Amino acid sequence: MGKGKICVAFSGGLDTSIILKWLIDEGYDVVAFTADVGQEEDFAAIKEKALKLGAVKAEVVDLRREFVEELCFPAIACNAIYENVYLLGTSLARPVIARAQIEVAKAINSPIDKQREGCFAVSHGCTGKGNDQVRFELAFYALQPDIKVIAPWRDPVFYERFAGRNDLLAYAAEKGIPVTSTKSKPWSMDENLAHCSYEAGILEDPDITPPSDMWKLTVDPLTAPDKPEDFTVHFEKGLPVKLEYTENGEQKTATDAVDLFLTANAIARRNGIGRIDIVENRFIGIKSRGCYETPGLTCLRSAHIDLEGLVLDREVRALRDQFVTVNYSKLLYNGLYFSPEREFLEQAIPASQKSVNGKVRCRAYKGNMIILGRSSETEKLYDMSESSMDEIGDFAPTETTGFIGVSAIRLKKYGQMKQAAGEKL
Amino acid sequence: MGKGKICVAFSGGLDTSIILKWLIDEGYDVVAFTADVGQEEDFAAIKEKALKLGAVKAEVVDLRREFVEELCFPAIACNAIYENVYLLGTSLARPVIARAQIEVAKAINSPIDKQREGCFAVSHGCTGKGNDQVRFELAFYALQPDIKVIAPWRDPVFYERFAGRNDLLAYAAEKGIPVTSTKSKPWSMDENLAHCSYEAGILEDPDITPPSDMWKLTVDPLTAPDKPEDFTVHFEKGLPVKLEYTENGEQKTATDAVDLFLTANAIARRNGIGRIDIVENRFIGIKSRGCYETPGLTCLRSAHIDLEGLVLDREVRALRDQFVTVNYSKLLYNGLYFSPEREFLEQAIPASQKSVNGKVRCRAYKGNMIILGRSSETEKLYDMSESSMDEIGDFAPTETTGFIGVSAIRLKKYGQMKQAAGEKL
Amino acid sequence: MGKGKICVAFSGGLDTSIILKWLIDEGYDVVAFTADVGQEEDFAAIKEKALKLGAVKAEVVDLRREFVEELCFPAIACNAIYENVYLLGTSLARPVIARAQIEVAKAINSPIDKQREGCFAVSHGCTGKGNDQVRFELAFYALQPDIKVIAPWRDPVFYERFAGRNDLLAYAAEKGIPVTSTKSKPWSMDENLAHCSYEAGILEDPDITPPSDMWKLTVDPLTAPDKPEDFTVHFEKGLPVKLEYTENGEQKTATDAVDLFLTANAIARRNGIGRIDIVENRFIGIKSRGCYETPGLTCLRSAHIDLEGLVLDREVRALRDQFVTVNYSKLLYNGLYFSPEREFLEQAIPASQKSVNGKVRCRAYKGNMIILGRSSETEKLYDMSESSMDEIGDFAPTETTGFIGVSAIRLKKYGQMKQAAGEKL
Amino acid sequence: MGKGKICVAFSGGLDTSIILKWLIDEGYDVVAFTADVGQEEDFAAIKEKALKLGAVKAEVVDLRREFVEELCFPAIACNAIYENVYLLGTSLARPVIARAQIEVAKAINSPIDKQREGCFAVSHGCTGKGNDQVRFELAFYALQPDIKVIAPWRDPVFYERFAGRNDLLAYAAEKGIPVTSTKSKPWSMDENLAHCSYEAGILEDPDITPPSDMWKLTVDPLTAPDKPEDFTVHFEKGLPVKLEYTENGEQKTATDAVDLFLTANAIARRNGIGRIDIVENRFIGIKSRGCYETPGLTCLRSAHIDLEGLVLDREVRALRDQFVTVNYSKLLYNGLYFSPEREFLEQAIPASQKSVNGKVRCRAYKGNMIILGRSSETEKLYDMSESSMDEIGDFAPTETTGFIGVSAIRLKKYGQMKQAAGEKL
Repeated sequence: MGKGKICVAFSGGLDTSIILKWLIDEGYDVVAFTADVGQEEDFAAIKEKALKLGAVKAEVVDLRREFVEELCFPAIACNAIYENVYLLGTSLARPVIARAQIEVAKAINSPIDKQREGCFAVSHGCTGKGNDQVRFELAFYALQPDIKVIAPWRDPVFYERFAGRNDLLAYAAEKGIPVTSTKSKPWSMDENLAHCSYEAGILEDPDITPPSDMWKLTVDPLTAPDKPEDFTVHFEKGLPVKLEYTENGEQKTATDAVDLFLTANAIARRNGIGRIDIVENRFIGIKSRGCYETPGLTCLRSAHIDLEGLVLDREVRALRDQFVTVNYSKLLYNGLYFSPEREFLEQAIPASQKSVNGKVRCRAYKGNMIILGRSSETEKLYDMSESSMDEIGDFAPTETTGFIGVSAIRLKKYGQMKQAAGEKL
Repeated sequence: MGKGKICVAFSGGLDTSIILKWLIDEGYDVVAFTADVGQEEDFAAIKEKALKLGAVKAEVVDLRREFVEELCFPAIACNAIYENVYLLGTSLARPVIARAQIEVAKAINSPIDKQREGCFAVSHGCTGKGNDQVRFELAFYALQPDIKVIAPWRDPVFYERFAGRNDLLAYAAEKGIPVTSTKSKPWSMDENLAHCSYEAGILEDPDITPPSDMWKLTVDPLTAPDKPEDFTVHFEKGLPVKLEYTENGEQKTATDAVDLFLTANAIARRNGIGRIDIVENRFIGIKSRGCYETPGLTCLRSAHIDLEGLVLDREVRALRDQFVTVNYSKLLYNGLYFSPEREFLEQAIPASQKSVNGKVRCRAYKGNMIILGRSSETEKLYDMSESSMDEIGDFAPTETTGFIGVSAIRLKKYGQMKQAAGEKL
Repeated sequence: MGKGKICVAFSGGLDTSIILKWLIDEGYDVVAFTADVGQEEDFAAIKEKALKLGAVKAEVVDLRREFVEELCFPAIACNAIYENVYLLGTSLARPVIARAQIEVAKAINSPIDKQREGCFAVSHGCTGKGNDQVRFELAFYALQPDIKVIAPWRDPVFYERFAGRNDLLAYAAEKGIPVTSTKSKPWSMDENLAHCSYEAGILEDPDITPPSDMWKLTVDPLTAPDKPEDFTVHFEKGLPVKLEYTENGEQKTATDAVDLFLTANAIARRNGIGRIDIVENRFIGIKSRGCYETPGLTCLRSAHIDLEGLVLDREVRALRDQFVTVNYSKLLYNGLYFSPEREFLEQAIPASQKSVNGKVRCRAYKGNMIILGRSSETEKLYDMSESSMDEIGDFAPTETTGFIGVSAIRLKKYGQMKQAAGEKL
Repeated sequence: MGKGKICVAFSGGLDTSIILKWLIDEGYDVVAFTADVGQEEDFAAIKEKALKLGAVKAEVVDLRREFVEELCFPAIACNAIYENVYLLGTSLARPVIARAQIEVAKAINSPIDKQREGCFAVSHGCTGKGNDQVRFELAFYALQPDIKVIAPWRDPVFYERFAGRNDLLAYAAEKGIPVTSTKSKPWSMDENLAHCSYEAGILEDPDITPPSDMWKLTVDPLTAPDKPEDFTVHFEKGLPVKLEYTENGEQKTATDAVDLFLTANAIARRNGIGRIDIVENRFIGIKSRGCYETPGLTCLRSAHIDLEGLVLDREVRALRDQFVTVNYSKLLYNGLYFSPEREFLEQAIPASQKSVNGKVRCRAYKGNMIILGRSSETEKLYDMSESSMDEIGDFAPTETTGFIGVSAIRLKKYGQMKQAAGEKL
């Protein structure tokens, strides 16, 4: 009789294969869980591999739609960004993956141990220094407060046994675990529909420029097409609802959320848009270097920001920027998606986006996302004649004198005090 | 005997020439004030024109150094930005111009009216709907609380007389005011060392793409050189102190603030970096469309942000971002530079930048400002071995379990309450 | 034929009586509007006076319920406060008054000039230096963008004619306007259900202690009853829903919003609670001194804050405090209630208050509002055994070691750098 | 030969006596460290007890002055407060205690083990669920990154042995540790110059009103003197510099920081000022109930807030409130005093307080701290004639019309859109 069922996050790669096998060796029934968040993988082969390794069950769950609709789109609607630069590609996928893993863990009924319902534990292959362990586990605990979490890379029994890659390969050979390539890349990657990340390995020296063959999703801006590619993004209540573009000389349109997102990706990828390279601050207080490609999201977010200029009230925008954007981004990064504060903040996103309706004409060109123009049929906060320097419009220029005069009351007092004190301004 | 002396902001263009002449006609002694903030102009010709038009004195004041050192550099040091996009090029120049104009106004002793010291008033040619009138006048009032401000474009006597361009041209012809070109550009521009802005005219339709011949400072990314150009920016306490670049195959270095800034400009200009096109919210509550080129500042700010990732503490950065950057940018935009709040906030900039020492290797390429790498000889917050996923370092991975466990206390309670309420997360 | 209809805010006092009469003399049809927001007045007499003075119509509108439910209760729910001290009593009433005045202005059909529907203008008796003019007019313009506002105290024709109180009295005598008392109080007052304010006159010296007979609503703490009075406030979703108290030895309960609010007022008034005396910063940039009594609101807000400690998540509370409370209070003070930002922020109030359910036992005693205890039947975030220092509970104390260890990673690096630099902490 | 030296925080109470003895039994040399932060204790007896129990050395360090000057005064200058209510009395003392303990730990040279310099570890008696363990340890790690921390109440060997009070008493009896009282109070206390806290035990039920004999520092407002007591606090640059009061009919003055603070305490204590009772959110995510007395600090902070109204610019105040006060308070509470963010934020306190010069006349009466008036000889931002409703002053009331008109531009557009959409405001 087994020690119980564990639902293990399984990518098919070396690390999670070892973990899966090792847990079985330790006497657990293992349910393999694989999330499809749009990474380019052979999911059938992953599933087969899991079963072959001895998993009592292997589940591949397609999370692409909820990933786009529940995470990426709100991120666009609030212009989410971490530390001025990072578009949170990895963080965005973690909540949907964690939720699906908990659902699989709860639902599974092992054929071997029919008495026990569900898994008592979940396991993941994250390292002990990164953000992802925190993101997954905080999500697990909020979703299923009594779940047990097994994190082999923080378990001395495990990490002392597998101190280096050679230990992993030896164990794989011993246990007959197929290893796809004998030579791994000198960095680690995480891919999903929104982005691909690269970190660790040679990238740990923050002054090493990433090799040009590292980038997987986007072409190099230097070798991107010489001809710019124009497209138009339509928004309703802050969410992308239509993308118009040209393919092979033909005018096309994407409206379904996933389709639209993939189309934005395709345009950005072939035009080299969305690469960044930063040193960021992890939740646990360590600085780390990451390189990220976020093609479509970069374009959609940029178009969204532009449209807000046209249609969003100044004060709502400022409050949203300082409050919602900053805090929503931070909680996503720190893995606090399933939290009271996310529930609270998330209600502020649609509240801020009622008027964000219109379209933005864009140009992709060798790494650049260029705004060509924007318009809205419904929103009227922008008023060409009021804005015009050539027309008086319906307010008297003399009123501005009063506006300035009153705004200056406080400053005149300040100036007088400075003069009295002999201080220069 | 005159009605007194007025110090008039004089650009040499049609509007301020008319204003200057009109004020003389109204019986004032006019002192022409022209600020050199790096715009490309023939300042000798401007001075001559002012005197020819009847100014009792004409002063051209070179403000380039104080503009770069007192305004542009602090803006870089706090990553100033307005509404996510605009780098505040115009706003940055206003404080130094206003201060110099007040100094000229105070110092001038008219040869005609020797009894009266200084000007009782200052005048500018700003329109009655824009930001600049506010910026200049709030600065005037703080710097010299009892100054009188004459704003002809808000004076019905003036703006009703000069209702259109033809009225201006007719008056110019009548008064013998030389007009450089009979045909003005279909937009208005403002240029300084940091940027050039374009607004009004045909740009008032926010869906009209700016014509490619509008942009003055930068080459079109589409026609920029095919070969990327690399350079390195060094920072000390958050300020750029050295720029290393290659010219004609020769390694060069700029260290003087103005020289460094101009060099950054030159690199960015020839590689098409720093164009933006936005709809923004003016201080007076009107939305307006502006196109801006901010070549060098875009690169220096971007390099500065990158370096902060390597050397600035996470919490200091977050506080600075949410507090200093947002509010300093907003007060610059709104013309509140000479204010208690600027004095307060500005002390927080160096306080945040003590550790921002190091260099950033950059690449300019067809509109892209790409980070190649960064390093610091003095700062050690980034620790390659601590960051490494491959090394245990000096903290135990097991500690993270406790960190997550404690961080989850609050979330487990939340999850329990949600479960009890039958609500899904 | 008249010049058109104006809806005039009419309090029955000297100033608005003069304004009403003066506008009639100027040829307007005047509709008198009086808001009942709970101030102690003889509204029938006010109405009669208005008609006697020549108003074509006089409307008294009872706004007490909407004042309490739409303004005071949300203010309690978000703990609204201005500059750490002021509970916004006057500001809270302005939106409902302005809205009702616009409704009266729109609805009125003059018997004299039947052709013209509604009033083309509204008028108020606010001075030209205060906050209220701004609050009323910004509300008027948002509610009815094409309304004309007549502000006699900013009209030189009016204010130069009525330069002092004697001019007003002389005009009143001339026109037969009844004046209630020949001697006015040496300060001005504004009263409503939530508070009474005192400013101007002898209070303009901020070092003069208000005379004890100034305070109208509350007894002096020094002469308040020697016996404390206990009561209990129940909240649902952050709003007061029941107040239990004792009257003449009898246990009583108030549940209707207005009744509950008046009961809280009565308890606080007889126990001397809610007096403050401050120097505040007006919207227009002038500092002014104000004394305020806010009896019931002080108690209800204080009880609400206390309950939040028990039932509100820490992070939601912190975000609400820094974002909603501060900005909602500021916009109320500045008269920006009818604005996009209020609409945006107000949605965050109920979003933050879902869990604010429970009751607070309170004691009123000689100026003190003392919390005796609090409890909630539905909310479980407070967990006595988890909180207990004497029980281990369901988390291992060893976990805290990890929590502290990881939290210290960043600080150790900081400490190392300080040591290396020879700087003392 | 011993296992090395440990510096143990020693209060003289049961817990730390047991810990001290237990560590000696475990083979360590123990240095007893006792901080005098103003709590009422017999420090000579504590020292003697430590030595008697076997400490190799016992140090009592008087930290009262640095506690007042470095912590309490900056807290007053930025109006520090946690969760709207708590004045941070315990948190304020922790940094000076931790710093002194590390200094003692470094300096000590054991007479028994002369070879080894200093202590390799520090130990404290905090429980495993509270804030203080975090505050002490984060401070230790920042001050001395390689220090080892021994926290017996988180060590299973220790806490399983001493599972209840009887185990402690049995061990005390066995080891001859004198126990002052056989019956402990049904709550735990922490006292210092600024406050006394009460938590745990019977207080864990948040609906239990604290018994009246619990409060140690202040008299009950119900039994406080019937005669109010007036005093005046003078501030320079935001710090209290003089306190004028009357004692036995004699006018007295305190100017020394500690003396002034103690005088404020004495006045507040005898008039029942500064009691609060709250449920707060601990750093580790647990809600807990605490009762606090903070007599003098309550009065000084309140006077400081009042003076700021008179002399501090509105925008500086608002920025300081939202940024410095909130974040400085939070970091104090969370034990992040020795951190980059505190260093950053603390520079903003004097920067905000340049103009906070003047005096506040106050009245203490049965729990109330009443402001009687305030004045400043040097600061002129408050201008009686400008503020006056009766004088025109040096700005034209007509200017306000323009101010309102321009401020309304944005709101009119909003109102128009609402009308067009048929939505009610």
